Amino acid sequence: MSRPQVAVIGAGISGLTMAKMLGDYGIDHVVYEASNRIGGNWAFGNPNGHSSAYRSLHIDTSKHQLSFKDFPMPADFPDFPHHTQIKDYLEQYAAAYDLKDSIEFENGIVHADRLADGGWELTTQRTGTRRADVLVVANGHHWDPRFAEKPGEFTGLTMHSHAYIDPREPHDLTGRRILIIGLGNSAADIAVELSSKTLENEVVISTRSGAWIVPKYLAGKPADKYYRTSPHIPFAWQRKLAQVFQPLTAGRPEDYGLPTPNHKFFEAHPTQSVELPLRLGSGDLRAKGDIERFDGRTVHFEDRTAEEFDVVLHATGYNITFPFFDPDFVSAPENHIRLYKRIFKPGVDDLAFVGFAQSTPTLFPFVECQTRLVAAWLAGRYEPPTAAEMEQVISADEQKYTAHMVQRPRHTQQLDYFLYEHDLRVKELPAGVRRASEKSTPGPHSLHSVGSAT
Amino acid sequence: MSRPQVAVIGAGISGLTMAKMLGDYGIDHVVYEASNRIGGNWAFGNPNGHSSAYRSLHIDTSKHQLSFKDFPMPADFPDFPHHTQIKDYLEQYAAAYDLKDSIEFENGIVHADRLADGGWELTTQRTGTRRADVLVVANGHHWDPRFAEKPGEFTGLTMHSHAYIDPREPHDLTGRRILIIGLGNSAADIAVELSSKTLENEVVISTRSGAWIVPKYLAGKPADKYYRTSPHIPFAWQRKLAQVFQPLTAGRPEDYGLPTPNHKFFEAHPTQSVELPLRLGSGDLRAKGDIERFDGRTVHFEDRTAEEFDVVLHATGYNITFPFFDPDFVSAPENHIRLYKRIFKPGVDDLAFVGFAQSTPTLFPFVECQTRLVAAWLAGRYEPPTAAEMEQVISADEQKYTAHMVQRPRHTQQLDYFLYEHDLRVKELPAGVRRASEKSTPGPHSLHSVGSAT
Repeated sequence: MSRPQVAVIGAGISGLTMAKMLGDYGIDHVVYEASNRIGGNWAFGNPNGHSSAYRSLHIDTSKHQLSFKDFPMPADFPDFPHHTQIKDYLEQYAAAYDLKDSIEFENGIVHADRLADGGWELTTQRTGTRRADVLVVANGHHWDPRFAEKPGEFTGLTMHSHAYIDPREPHDLTGRRILIIGLGNSAADIAVELSSKTLENEVVISTRSGAWIVPKYLAGKPADKYYRTSPHIPFAWQRKLAQVFQPLTAGRPEDYGLPTPNHKFFEAHPTQSVELPLRLGSGDLRAKGDIERFDGRTVHFEDRTAEEFDVVLHATGYNITFPFFDPDFVSAPENHIRLYKRIFKPGVDDLAFVGFAQSTPTLFPFVECQTRLVAAWLAGRYEPPTAAEMEQVISADEQKYTAHMVQRPRHTQQLDYFLYEHDLRVKELPAGVRRASEKSTPGPHSLHSVGSAT
Repeated sequence: MSRPQVAVIGAGISGLTMAKMLGDYGIDHVVYEASNRIGGNWAFGNPNGHSSAYRSLHIDTSKHQLSFKDFPMPADFPDFPHHTQIKDYLEQYAAAYDLKDSIEFENGIVHADRLADGGWELTTQRTGTRRADVLVVANGHHWDPRFAEKPGEFTGLTMHSHAYIDPREPHDLTGRRILIIGLGNSAADIAVELSSKTLENEVVISTRSGAWIVPKYLAGKPADKYYRTSPHIPFAWQRKLAQVFQPLTAGRPEDYGLPTPNHKFFEAHPTQSVELPLRLGSGDLRAKGDIERFDGRTVHFEDRTAEEFDVVLHATGYNITFPFFDPDFVSAPENHIRLYKRIFKPGVDDLAFVGFAQSTPTLFPFVECQTRLVAAWLAGRYEPPTAAEMEQVISADEQKYTAHMVQRPRHTQQLDYFLYEHDLRVKELPAGVRRASEKSTPGPHSLHSVGSAT
């Protein structure tokens, strides 16, 4: 049986993990990377513009939960590694599995055209047109800034957390009146950083939906060490239990002057911050509800108050964007994209997506799950179901993972790692292996049609 | 009955509260203040050099515990006010009770001589020699820096937390290798501030005794809201209970890489910090044990490791110092001074001390207790016991409040506010009132001997 030539877009976490799994299975592949380095989001100051890391960024998942299952983090790493350590770790991972051999740097995919009878024609940055049997999209979803859309115009400095490096880079954010929009992890981190009295800023944080704040540590241990969803108990019951115990860990958001969330605990991605409640409770930082409109330097809030600001910093998340696809072919309006197991697009059987989920509590093992399934598929051992069945399952999975969440672009991708991992390992992989064994030519349909892709 | 003319040294919290109580009792007094403002330690940048406040300092006692009992903090104050708010609050307190009328600014007491037959001759900064019947010492104990004494010499920059303002003042502390000595609240705050990755420092914190870290918030409420010692249950049992529950709140110091404390929880002043465990657990900050010696830029630690530093910052607390007294008359070697109820020096019956304790969990109400007793004494309503009895009680109280503590200069003054307040209100004041009623001329013995003191 012949094996497909695979093109992978991006050498961030998802692309690297994909390359590692393809290497394990001995499947030919090329990783096309626009930058001169691996790491994507975790390559601080990445020349491809796709890193959103600020200088002080630490991962909000503890190393115990974050590590690749087959490549533990170094024992001397702290509980919550700095971005430079994540980058080092990825470099070690790449070195251990010779991943760089298959990466073409500064040769990103500018356009990907699906050929009429399957297979791909790829326009690259540096090496013209290339071919592949199968395309794996691993370009990440934390690089295209999403701004809050509000009426009116703000005439001070507008920036996005994506561009934020530190209080003095790229803009001098000292002695300023700063409004931060959003209450996710980046918003919390940046609000804490900029509201230090040493910088003499006046900082307000504005939130539309509110958020539940969870600590990074609980009783001296990284809080996510206690997090483990069971696949054997209804998910709704487990959420209920978390809702009952939440007040014992961090209290209610109102305790710190935050607006009441428009959702229960675990009905939206909680915000992990030890420092945010402290800064609010110390008066260094104030919280407001949603914005009604901008007017010059003035921001009008929904509570009918108004304040003047010098800077508005949008920490409002990212768009899922595929600049190399015709929007008619694949796009994610409002970050919504229907993918089977967040991997397969029904009806397109030589295309896979990797890393497109907000997996709680951990990302790297989630990407391992996905890439393991994709590699099994490319090796002809796993076969996805029919397009019609995929559509049914997508709807059921959306119900399972996101129906209880606030319907916002940021939650379209929400997913519980433990449930997902259990589903793939215990149900989906065995079912796909059965399907593959019943098929005459398993694997992506076009894998015989292309000669050489490099 | 004639009333004494009282001189109060200092217009910080203790001096102000004393002046307020003397005003309540209608007792003539002058407050001698070296600076041009009230507030002492809480007057940031105080020209008298007696403020140890750094720019980002917030009080570590919540406003609920901190407020004067007869002057609540403004409702719009945050849970943990900033030093500027404490200063504002003291200004409001001074205005509400006309306290500034009795303060002589920029007229500190340079020398205080006790006259042979009682009463005081005071040498002042600005107005020459003055007289008083009774002297109240309220000059504070957080202004004379105590340095760690270690063999050898460090040739980099040596500074004390007393002089620290922010990462750029008075020294540029960015891009430096910094050793912070101590693990008290100032050490923790400054270590957190300087170890922010945005400043690109490398920060190590060295501790001799270790410390237990307690959070500022517990289940969404200021942690000290849960703190209330009962006078009706043995103190040792209550400490034991705290020791049992401590792991549930913040874990063990070793969880974050801190050395094992040389004492149990509550056997030394715990350190309140939400951020310190996070910074240690994020690898921004490292912890080491005690220092063995300095050698140029190199610091040798007791664990036989050595490291180079650019800066050594001593956050090792303060000496109790009375520069206006002959050391033979009153001094506090190793911060040890035997005072009855932390107020009276046995054998000197026209002298009182106010504010000389490390009162847990709160300071202002403790000072109110003390000044209420002192005012009752000056009004002739309260009489302390004989010098011999005082000596016995001092030893018993030391046993009660500090025998379980690590024997260090910083713990000589340790005191539980709730037990102290109960003791003064329920036992000491009624007993002193009885003693006064049995005496022919109650009040300080010298109060008839001085003419006018102003």
